Amino acid sequence: MSPKDGVRTAPPIASRVSRVVVVGAGFAGLEVARELGRAGLPVVLIDRQNHHLFQPLLYQVATAALSATDIAEPIRKILRRYDSVQVLLGEVTETDTDNQTITLADGSSFGYDYLVLAPGASHSYFGHSEWSERAPGLKSLTDARFIRARALLAFERAERTIDPAEQSRLMTIVIVGGGPTGVELAGSLAELSRYTLARDFRSARPEAARIVLIEAGPRILSGFSEEISDYAHRRLEKLGVEISTSKPVEDIGEGTISFGGSIMPVGLVLWAAGVAASPLGSKLGAPLDKAGRVLVDETMRPKGSTNVFVLGDAALFTGKDGQPLPGLAQVAKQQGRHLGRALVRHMKEGTALPPFEYRSRGNTAIVGRHAAVFERGRFKLKGWLAWAAWAIIHVYLLVGFQNRMLVSLQWFWRYITFERGARVMYDDTFDIRQARTPAAGQPASKVEE
Amino acid sequence: MSPKDGVRTAPPIASRVSRVVVVGAGFAGLEVARELGRAGLPVVLIDRQNHHLFQPLLYQVATAALSATDIAEPIRKILRRYDSVQVLLGEVTETDTDNQTITLADGSSFGYDYLVLAPGASHSYFGHSEWSERAPGLKSLTDARFIRARALLAFERAERTIDPAEQSRLMTIVIVGGGPTGVELAGSLAELSRYTLARDFRSARPEAARIVLIEAGPRILSGFSEEISDYAHRRLEKLGVEISTSKPVEDIGEGTISFGGSIMPVGLVLWAAGVAASPLGSKLGAPLDKAGRVLVDETMRPKGSTNVFVLGDAALFTGKDGQPLPGLAQVAKQQGRHLGRALVRHMKEGTALPPFEYRSRGNTAIVGRHAAVFERGRFKLKGWLAWAAWAIIHVYLLVGFQNRMLVSLQWFWRYITFERGARVMYDDTFDIRQARTPAAGQPASKVEE
Repeated sequence: MSPKDGVRTAPPIASRVSRVVVVGAGFAGLEVARELGRAGLPVVLIDRQNHHLFQPLLYQVATAALSATDIAEPIRKILRRYDSVQVLLGEVTETDTDNQTITLADGSSFGYDYLVLAPGASHSYFGHSEWSERAPGLKSLTDARFIRARALLAFERAERTIDPAEQSRLMTIVIVGGGPTGVELAGSLAELSRYTLARDFRSARPEAARIVLIEAGPRILSGFSEEISDYAHRRLEKLGVEISTSKPVEDIGEGTISFGGSIMPVGLVLWAAGVAASPLGSKLGAPLDKAGRVLVDETMRPKGSTNVFVLGDAALFTGKDGQPLPGLAQVAKQQGRHLGRALVRHMKEGTALPPFEYRSRGNTAIVGRHAAVFERGRFKLKGWLAWAAWAIIHVYLLVGFQNRMLVSLQWFWRYITFERGARVMYDDTFDIRQARTPAAGQPASKVEE
Repeated sequence: MSPKDGVRTAPPIASRVSRVVVVGAGFAGLEVARELGRAGLPVVLIDRQNHHLFQPLLYQVATAALSATDIAEPIRKILRRYDSVQVLLGEVTETDTDNQTITLADGSSFGYDYLVLAPGASHSYFGHSEWSERAPGLKSLTDARFIRARALLAFERAERTIDPAEQSRLMTIVIVGGGPTGVELAGSLAELSRYTLARDFRSARPEAARIVLIEAGPRILSGFSEEISDYAHRRLEKLGVEISTSKPVEDIGEGTISFGGSIMPVGLVLWAAGVAASPLGSKLGAPLDKAGRVLVDETMRPKGSTNVFVLGDAALFTGKDGQPLPGLAQVAKQQGRHLGRALVRHMKEGTALPPFEYRSRGNTAIVGRHAAVFERGRFKLKGWLAWAAWAIIHVYLLVGFQNRMLVSLQWFWRYITFERGARVMYDDTFDIRQARTPAAGQPASKVEE
């Protein structure tokens, strides 16, 4: 086993078949486990949840279009056929690279020969942790269900108030961050209020709800070309979304948001702005960037590591063009597949680990019914065709076959009827008995009597 | 307007159109609102949830077969077309029959001309309120999701332990109560462990899980004939369910249950035994039975009331045979439809309220894949045909059309593949970081190393 092209190789362990421990069953971790499983090599996959989440469609759960279980598959089910793969439900709290062990939250610990960290990312409130309570972000099913309940509750409350100012405050939803998630949330919320809820209320008028998208930079979808960005801007405005650019958020209060020097009364603020890598990466002692991502080399290893890898949103991988790879599902998936295959060859034949190279399949975002944008290099697609392509690709990418059928059917149904299948909130997402209106000292309003 | 057949009539209110307030959007309340809405009469429907729940299928959500949103429809959507119906999200805490007002949890209150109480029922632990934490019951989506997470977690924990006794304890699920809900839960959990989960674990063997059904009386499904009851008993045993009859539960501890003088270590206990009516009925000051149900006459009014009605599980209505009507969806639905129509005629034409008469459509329970029981008078049906009839009827009864399609499709899929679509638990249903094994002082076990 000799180093090749200057690429480090992991130390040879001859005594027994090496064990790979993978932390996180997102797009990256799942692919690593699948490749190793396919080759019959032993791997332990650990995740805090029992399901793999199809994050690109999470905004549809948050806006009541899909059910939580539509976009989640049990990890065990996905990897069932691979006998060498063991799936564990647990939270990794410590990594000890000297002794090659990891520790779980319940105190149990065990060893690895190769460690693959793919724990993902959560929200960053840029030092304003107090905003997290007031402006929920969207990373998990819990987040999505919480946002869904909050949004539906805002309309329920508006129905019960007789004060027009309070009614319009309750029906003002502000989304912070004009990236793909922010754009998708804004478009989907505008449609929810204008089409789905419009006919269901007697006192409140959901179609008059204000959906406001705030972007600190000069334009929304800054990862796309200006042409695409302009198109999305116009399209959202046509849906009734108000867009504010070049004005960063100054403060988020109880029922208010401040930006550009003015205060806006709001019913709900959603956070789609900052991302922070999982704190697990920092336990390695390797260099991090400002967002907490571990700097990795072309074989996805932090400096000095031979048998530890960091993938996906938790890693900062610099592409050929000198730019860091974006936090996309396709990046994580390609990294996972590459590393899985490389480890198989390395463990079976002792070959060196080849460098990873990202091949972009293009960027996409959905801007409401009939309208999406797609860009790959100079190729641009927008409007209905991009939307259809988006729908087909996303249904295809959904892991389970049953989900594919169900999601297709729901989308088709929703397309014809403007209905949404998941407009449900329960007790535990948001207790209405405690959910008083947070506006300044206003008494509970009496229903028209 | 003259009393007819000795039936009391509500006082005439000539000055304006009378307003009906309906509390609870279950099967009974929904029907009342629908009938009044159809006639264009003003009605306010108040519920603590934003959705109507199809309770007969709740056990399928608890056992991961269906998603929560499959069996829940937004109340607003169901009643959308009726402009005279106003739906309010809120919890009624007080009723004042002297002043004809009700009060909500947020302090707001408003008046009624006719009050229809249909708030349903919850669990009764027969004076052992400490059992409620240890043996969750099944009445709401929150309950169902909680039970689902607890059951799935029991298997996840079993996978992580190396102690065989502990593993078998974790995979022992006891259901208390041999009525239709208990039978349906037991059958569905047996199938979940034997078919769906069986191939997904490496260390634990879900197919060896013990599913135990405990009935205090001499036989399960005591509401059915002995023939049907025997069939269900044999059928469940064939599925691997252990059945204990004539032994009431003596105690439920942390990880144990005592019955018939012996203690059994358990991973999970589910409660399907006692029912207690909503406490709202007691606010009327009318006579109640032991389960807290309001005694009502043949027009569904408590003694002495002219304009207050109690329906569904919160009421004790004595049938022609002198027996109280059972707590079934069909009873509630028939009562609601009857009262709604009677009120329309009464309010429009001043006719007296006719007495309600229940017409049983038969009793049914499902005892697992391919097997159900159905009984109506002397007509009995069991096995595959009863199961098919059950499936068709239940899909037909589901309120929304989209849900009908989705549920049919899922059942069909599940039937072919033994898969389940909703094997998902999230963070907030059950925090795995806090979920330590409740067994006596056992340390967190190390994974095979």
